[in-house]
Amino acid sequence: MEQNIRIADMIQGQQIQGYYILKDIRCKTSANGSPFLSAKLMDTTGEMDSKIWNYSGPLTAEDNGRVMLLRGEVTEYNGTLQFIIHRIRPAEAGDHYDIADLVPSAPIDTEAALLEVREIIASIEDSEYRALCQSMLERHLESFYTIPAAKSVHHAFRSGLLMHTLNMMRAADFLAELYSEVIDRSLLLAGTFLHDFGKGQEMVRSELGLVTDYSSQGMLLGHLYICAREIAELAGKQGMSEEKTMLLQHLILSHHGQPEHGAAVQPQCAESELLALIDLMDSRMEIYAEAVSELKPGDFSGKLYALGKAVYRHK
Amino acid sequence: MEQNIRIADMIQGQQIQGYYILKDIRCKTSANGSPFLSAKLMDTTGEMDSKIWNYSGPLTAEDNGRVMLLRGEVTEYNGTLQFIIHRIRPAEAGDHYDIADLVPSAPIDTEAALLEVREIIASIEDSEYRALCQSMLERHLESFYTIPAAKSVHHAFRSGLLMHTLNMMRAADFLAELYSEVIDRSLLLAGTFLHDFGKGQEMVRSELGLVTDYSSQGMLLGHLYICAREIAELAGKQGMSEEKTMLLQHLILSHHGQPEHGAAVQPQCAESELLALIDLMDSRMEIYAEAVSELKPGDFSGKLYALGKAVYRHK
Amino acid sequence: MEQNIRIADMIQGQQIQGYYILKDIRCKTSANGSPFLSAKLMDTTGEMDSKIWNYSGPLTAEDNGRVMLLRGEVTEYNGTLQFIIHRIRPAEAGDHYDIADLVPSAPIDTEAALLEVREIIASIEDSEYRALCQSMLERHLESFYTIPAAKSVHHAFRSGLLMHTLNMMRAADFLAELYSEVIDRSLLLAGTFLHDFGKGQEMVRSELGLVTDYSSQGMLLGHLYICAREIAELAGKQGMSEEKTMLLQHLILSHHGQPEHGAAVQPQCAESELLALIDLMDSRMEIYAEAVSELKPGDFSGKLYALGKAVYRHK
Amino acid sequence: MEQNIRIADMIQGQQIQGYYILKDIRCKTSANGSPFLSAKLMDTTGEMDSKIWNYSGPLTAEDNGRVMLLRGEVTEYNGTLQFIIHRIRPAEAGDHYDIADLVPSAPIDTEAALLEVREIIASIEDSEYRALCQSMLERHLESFYTIPAAKSVHHAFRSGLLMHTLNMMRAADFLAELYSEVIDRSLLLAGTFLHDFGKGQEMVRSELGLVTDYSSQGMLLGHLYICAREIAELAGKQGMSEEKTMLLQHLILSHHGQPEHGAAVQPQCAESELLALIDLMDSRMEIYAEAVSELKPGDFSGKLYALGKAVYRHK
Amino acid sequence: MEQNIRIADMIQGQQIQGYYILKDIRCKTSANGSPFLSAKLMDTTGEMDSKIWNYSGPLTAEDNGRVMLLRGEVTEYNGTLQFIIHRIRPAEAGDHYDIADLVPSAPIDTEAALLEVREIIASIEDSEYRALCQSMLERHLESFYTIPAAKSVHHAFRSGLLMHTLNMMRAADFLAELYSEVIDRSLLLAGTFLHDFGKGQEMVRSELGLVTDYSSQGMLLGHLYICAREIAELAGKQGMSEEKTMLLQHLILSHHGQPEHGAAVQPQCAESELLALIDLMDSRMEIYAEAVSELKPGDFSGKLYALGKAVYRHK
Amino acid sequence: MEQNIRIADMIQGQQIQGYYILKDIRCKTSANGSPFLSAKLMDTTGEMDSKIWNYSGPLTAEDNGRVMLLRGEVTEYNGTLQFIIHRIRPAEAGDHYDIADLVPSAPIDTEAALLEVREIIASIEDSEYRALCQSMLERHLESFYTIPAAKSVHHAFRSGLLMHTLNMMRAADFLAELYSEVIDRSLLLAGTFLHDFGKGQEMVRSELGLVTDYSSQGMLLGHLYICAREIAELAGKQGMSEEKTMLLQHLILSHHGQPEHGAAVQPQCAESELLALIDLMDSRMEIYAEAVSELKPGDFSGKLYALGKAVYRHK
Repeated sequence: MEQNIRIADMIQGQQIQGYYILKDIRCKTSANGSPFLSAKLMDTTGEMDSKIWNYSGPLTAEDNGRVMLLRGEVTEYNGTLQFIIHRIRPAEAGDHYDIADLVPSAPIDTEAALLEVREIIASIEDSEYRALCQSMLERHLESFYTIPAAKSVHHAFRSGLLMHTLNMMRAADFLAELYSEVIDRSLLLAGTFLHDFGKGQEMVRSELGLVTDYSSQGMLLGHLYICAREIAELAGKQGMSEEKTMLLQHLILSHHGQPEHGAAVQPQCAESELLALIDLMDSRMEIYAEAVSELKPGDFSGKLYALGKAVYRHK
Repeated sequence: MEQNIRIADMIQGQQIQGYYILKDIRCKTSANGSPFLSAKLMDTTGEMDSKIWNYSGPLTAEDNGRVMLLRGEVTEYNGTLQFIIHRIRPAEAGDHYDIADLVPSAPIDTEAALLEVREIIASIEDSEYRALCQSMLERHLESFYTIPAAKSVHHAFRSGLLMHTLNMMRAADFLAELYSEVIDRSLLLAGTFLHDFGKGQEMVRSELGLVTDYSSQGMLLGHLYICAREIAELAGKQGMSEEKTMLLQHLILSHHGQPEHGAAVQPQCAESELLALIDLMDSRMEIYAEAVSELKPGDFSGKLYALGKAVYRHK
Repeated sequence: MEQNIRIADMIQGQQIQGYYILKDIRCKTSANGSPFLSAKLMDTTGEMDSKIWNYSGPLTAEDNGRVMLLRGEVTEYNGTLQFIIHRIRPAEAGDHYDIADLVPSAPIDTEAALLEVREIIASIEDSEYRALCQSMLERHLESFYTIPAAKSVHHAFRSGLLMHTLNMMRAADFLAELYSEVIDRSLLLAGTFLHDFGKGQEMVRSELGLVTDYSSQGMLLGHLYICAREIAELAGKQGMSEEKTMLLQHLILSHHGQPEHGAAVQPQCAESELLALIDLMDSRMEIYAEAVSELKPGDFSGKLYALGKAVYRHK
Repeated sequence: MEQNIRIADMIQGQQIQGYYILKDIRCKTSANGSPFLSAKLMDTTGEMDSKIWNYSGPLTAEDNGRVMLLRGEVTEYNGTLQFIIHRIRPAEAGDHYDIADLVPSAPIDTEAALLEVREIIASIEDSEYRALCQSMLERHLESFYTIPAAKSVHHAFRSGLLMHTLNMMRAADFLAELYSEVIDRSLLLAGTFLHDFGKGQEMVRSELGLVTDYSSQGMLLGHLYICAREIAELAGKQGMSEEKTMLLQHLILSHHGQPEHGAAVQPQCAESELLALIDLMDSRMEIYAEAVSELKPGDFSGKLYALGKAVYRHK
Repeated sequence: MEQNIRIADMIQGQQIQGYYILKDIRCKTSANGSPFLSAKLMDTTGEMDSKIWNYSGPLTAEDNGRVMLLRGEVTEYNGTLQFIIHRIRPAEAGDHYDIADLVPSAPIDTEAALLEVREIIASIEDSEYRALCQSMLERHLESFYTIPAAKSVHHAFRSGLLMHTLNMMRAADFLAELYSEVIDRSLLLAGTFLHDFGKGQEMVRSELGLVTDYSSQGMLLGHLYICAREIAELAGKQGMSEEKTMLLQHLILSHHGQPEHGAAVQPQCAESELLALIDLMDSRMEIYAEAVSELKPGDFSGKLYALGKAVYRHK
Repeated sequence: MEQNIRIADMIQGQQIQGYYILKDIRCKTSANGSPFLSAKLMDTTGEMDSKIWNYSGPLTAEDNGRVMLLRGEVTEYNGTLQFIIHRIRPAEAGDHYDIADLVPSAPIDTEAALLEVREIIASIEDSEYRALCQSMLERHLESFYTIPAAKSVHHAFRSGLLMHTLNMMRAADFLAELYSEVIDRSLLLAGTFLHDFGKGQEMVRSELGLVTDYSSQGMLLGHLYICAREIAELAGKQGMSEEKTMLLQHLILSHHGQPEHGAAVQPQCAESELLALIDLMDSRMEIYAEAVSELKPGDFSGKLYALGKAVYRHK
């Protein structure tokens, strides 16, 4: 019985015990009428189909995305490896495993990143914008620190939102200086920090911080609206001026740039225009980074869904 | 000196005194350096260019859209009639004139219309939706009763919003029955009644209820967002369930149908889909009504900006 | 040997005899050279792959969509149930089975529906339009009563066209009253009744009334043209006035609303504009009804091909 | 009193008598209440604004596009020449003037062109297609010989349709040979000859053959439908096979290539695809010819409405 | 052991030796850890999956598209025939096989075609354009004679570019005469001959002349740019006038017609407009020819990727 | 006689002598046959219509955009001021006037800007890219230092290209560091510096550096192609590696981002993607800066042609 073999390293015939994430759980009935459970094992190295034969519970689709301690054997079916589980139970308090082995995380020092975000917020000259950013950060600290920036496409890993937001704030800080003739730094930085706060309610997350789906609110209202509405409510409580409250909402509502890309209104002031471009730039650069990391120099990727084209890793 | 001649009936050489609306006011300086005021007279029969020579105030662009008592002469310039004002003052309390002669109004009995709106609201089965509609009506009663449904395009006259909303509620009531398999009547009627309440804040109005411009809020946030945000706030106060609160906001945010037509999100439930279609239908029918009323049977209009095509009045 | 087990209820190992529809028939040769027939069994509860080994006729693809009496066994292949046919012959006059068990039909009382259509036609004030509707109904009665409204997408079941047309006529009747200022009720009702009559020639149907394909005429000319041309021909025979003949053709040719949705010309009068919207509305509502019927409250569908988006069934 | 001065040669102060076309006729009332007639004089060299002061008839807008004998004086107004008419009457039988001086005509020998069209028709191998072409030519001979191919854009002169059709038939003849593997020459030539026959009913023409407007039929049904419908009717009378009748209608309905360019259906066979391209090619080449004829080598035109871009005349 | 059986004729159980093209080569490892090679056999009659079990070289993906002499057995897997290779080596000098059996070629007499191309070039009146065409032909003779016109879509066979170019030159020659008023024959013919010369660098070819991929240059610069740049360089060497050099580049850069179809600039002179249309026409006709050749009269193809629609083969 | 009155300060009746730019020169003939010259005076404060009566030369349209010494009077025509010139001659060597009063220039210290550009180039690590940038700078120094970045839209003033390029290089320098994981700083900076070098040939300039038109090369080939072609030629001379030469050309050809915005190919590597976004960002920020500078806080502009929307200057 081997212990905690990484999924990418499993070979046919191994008997294994270890901690893995179980996802895409489905309870089924075989052609001869007996119940079984079909699911996928996942760790940061990959995924593998899995079955528990003659199984009628207690695990169900509700347990999607949880860490399990399991024991079983690697077999082969139709030319593909498959893990047949013999014993399984959810991980418990006191179990020893490392989440970092199981779910992908942003390749950054998250504590340092959060500190830098706090410092940039502290540097916002306008006290009303600054106070609102600080309130929002405290209100949503755990979520802001943990969640991905998207379900897929880019930054789809733990702390992806933190990484994405910090990168954008760094760019916003520099560009506010470069275009100081038309940019109000306080407004731009506040809008940049806040722009994706609606994502916490837009997405359904597992206990490990992975996005398993969009929420009804996310689908029917959108994260732009969710965020702008909360800012309006909080700004009202803090007594922010009407003009600033309006501008912040405008930056949030327009940060997707074009209606056909999801913007509720078009950017109409220099800060909202720039914020939309910074968001586009950071997401594009991350898409390239993720795509290029899997290519050899001189090769093209296949057509990327998120860009609608193939990308090249130059020599 | 003739009294209150309708603008469409004025002829060259008449000396006239009467009440007219003054709009598009501009304070200018002539080539030889003397100040004058350029504006337009308006009543329900038309508009005429107007000048006050050697005039330096007190009227300014701030007085746009107000009723004036004025005296002057109809002259001709470059083949067009022009009204040269000799005396002018804003209408005062106690002056006798009929607003209905000066600004166009919806061709309906507005009191009966409001009563019918109240009755349909009272018929909403779901008490939470009904209560919210009643609160919104009381909160915005004067505005709902008075304002146009748009700055131009369709229903751009006093009480246009009331007329548009009532027509849509009648259609919604019928269609909720026809499609009762998929339509929750309470939700559809509430969404229909509320869908354009953001217009009060989206548009800047003169004292007579005419729209003179879009507000900053209207441009930067849009009336869909403004309305949905207020509904969320009010629903919170009234303790409406989370699902219903979300659905009402969704109906408001999506009632323009497509992002490229201004929808913040796409309709995704049967009621929001139907509301967007009813809104489209009522505005289209009014555009046709307004265009066709100026055509002879067998004639085509010119290309209408709002539709992107010419329309035909059949024989 | 069990009798007429519904396909959704079949389990591995059963020996069954019964009436089913055979479709997607293909005559093939196995790798070892022997002929076999591959097809699908269908009833209203579902479909199942089926084979007849060592079979060289007389059934061929020409028999697609016919009712068969067959005998065989439910087996399993690659994790899926498969019906191996041992004996088969087409159903004959005198056989006892219920078509309603085999092909899906509109969930309406079709005789009552046809009666209501006749009544609305009879209420058309303009005698020329009314006469033409009555002639078209008699000419195409069987087809109008039986065929689906589409090959897929919406109302794709027996009598789907009847159901779709009646719903639209009810809406048209109401809306002609609501918008009586611009709508000629006779024209709108006639156009609504006639709008999809070209579908009979656009689609190829099996003997049971299911659409198996588009016809060459349907592909190369389109049902809008086919219908408008027939109306022109019939109107000529009945001596309808030139203006009315033109208007009816215009309503038919434009009822898809936009050229990119298949309209041969754009709607240019109030009646054609409204007809296109009523058609859009009824098809959308049916798409929602069909999609929502398979969802639990609180769930989203997958992305629907016909709408390009997912839809929500609210709680 | 000078005689029949060409409009481009008129100078201020001349007293002139001659034959000109009168168009854009409007009966107006001056600011002081007296009636006058405003119109434009036209000959092949240009146009000039014209007035008849104190005129109350008998000429009206109904006389648009007719040849007039008139007498008057060239004056100047606002820096532009203007013709003040003193006497005017419509040209009568017996008057001596040359239409070719008054309306622009195709720069071809129209009799030779018609002969060549007849010869190509006679060379169509398939007797059914050939007979139908010959019937259509006889039925519409005068119109086919005279009318422009469009109201503006290209070939907007007398016999423009003849010139456009002949050019296309020459190209079709050559290309049917080049692509004989997929092209049925008879079908292509018949479709090419017939493709614009609906234009006769689509446009309203003056007695001189100039297009003054689109007809109601043209706007509401479109010339593609009008032509296809007539072909169907005539083919029925001549007993043409169903397949050929369908193909000819398909070529007509699809010859604008894309729905957004006015095609009722998309081209779906090689002949319809090629016909749409030949039509596009001939109209584009004529647009270039007309635009380039007004440029010096090395110059660009302004942005052409018909092409959405400027064009270059090379050195 | 049978010899050189055509792939379309292979049946299960045959032992075969012969020459075939090997493509899509992938070196893999089976679930139990042993290496094998997966590839496809190809000749002009079709393709078949193929395996070499327990194989670790020397063949690799580098050998894609080469002719192999191989020996093996036709087996069946999952209902599909599969060729298990027992022995394999690349074809060598001295081996006897006919390339025409292995790779598809243009259905033309290539030597006669080249001769005709040379003759048309020789007929170009302008000596500068003619000289440049001749130089380009000599520089790229082998490639021009051999390569396909595309990787797929149309003319994707040996000498496809030659066939495509000659057809277009024939059409250009005819149309230059038909539109001689606006077309400079020398410019049009030179541009037509040269328009696709960049394809040699845009595509990666196997030793047999088949396109196996796009090159990095092809992806990142495009064949329009590659060709225009080379023409500029060569024209400079030959002392061509600046205007003509510019025009030739313009024809190359714009020959895809629209930016969204890959044109670097829009056509802006009559010759570039016509060239783009001739290219469109010839590629469309070839797409039809290839699609229709696989259809029975009266049938439709499936939706063709290259056209976005189905096509019909008429009776 | 007053001297060098700024155009914005001119009032009716002034007799003025001074230096102004003459543009939009047209030689015309009045209705009574005498020649005159119509043109516009321009300085940095504005423009004014101007006439020289009874003038037949020597000035012609060839003198467009030149500085003139002139004498005349400010008059009024149709409510607008107009400058009637009595004497005029082109400015000569030795005349005293300040170009900065006549043509608008970038609001930067151009010498310092050029120095900074040189320093950033000197910091490019890759010696091949650096050398090519230095060669291009020396080759086009005067043009790079002087010309606008566009004919209108943004940076349409002297040294606009220098200002635009420097701003972009500053942003590129920062972002190359921020996205160092995927960005090759040398490639990005070289591409940024070079991206608009084709503009020198794309535009026709007056002797003062103002763009008066697009050149034929600019229209027919585009500045992207012109620049990429020159880089290819120069890189060849300098022996740059093939990969780097290709990448630089790719950055230039794709820097407009989308084909519909003028890109010859789409960006396909991280550096070209980022360059296109930096270019978009800098031009958008300048458009905002120019638009906002003419607004009061709280006001909206009219719809800007370059953005397709109005913009807001916040309070």
